[in-house]
Amino acid sequence: MLIKFFIKPRKGVLDPQGRAVAESLKSLGFDNVKDVKVGKYIEVYVDSTDKEKAIEEAKEMAKKAIVNDLIEDYEIQVVE
Amino acid sequence: MLIKFFIKPRKGVLDPQGRAVAESLKSLGFDNVKDVKVGKYIEVYVDSTDKEKAIEEAKEMAKKAIVNDLIEDYEIQVVE
Repeated sequence: MLIKFFIKPRKGVLDPQGRAVAESLKSLGFDNVKDVKVGKYIEVYVDSTDKEKAIEEAKEMAKKAIVNDLIEDYEIQVVE
Repeated sequence: MLIKFFIKPRKGVLDPQGRAVAESLKSLGFDNVKDVKVGKYIEVYVDSTDKEKAIEEAKEMAKKAIVNDLIEDYEIQVVE
């Protein structure tokens, strides 16, 4: 089973990478860019057949090792 | 409109961050972890009402500024 983590800076947290990408896109002519957030995309492949259990495990992983809850927001998606 | 980019290292490309996260998860007791890939998750908010056009624009952005095609794979999702 594959667990996908989509992590991004919390609202209000400084995101210098996001600003840099936004400026870069604008300078390349993408004038309609309003805002950019740069975060992390993590794939974790696990040996598991129980999707519900995998979701619970994913939340534990996020809390213990993958997400910094103070400054990051995240979403999980589990793919069979 | 919101363009989401999911970027990860290409198969075969060294991913030391992925290895580090995998080791860390295993040492925390997540014994069923088989593999981990660490990539980037980028959100680009654009002023646009045409979804098809936004998808084309997203591909251009990926090519010109966001993805390093030699070492990275990516997927795009456009949300209205």
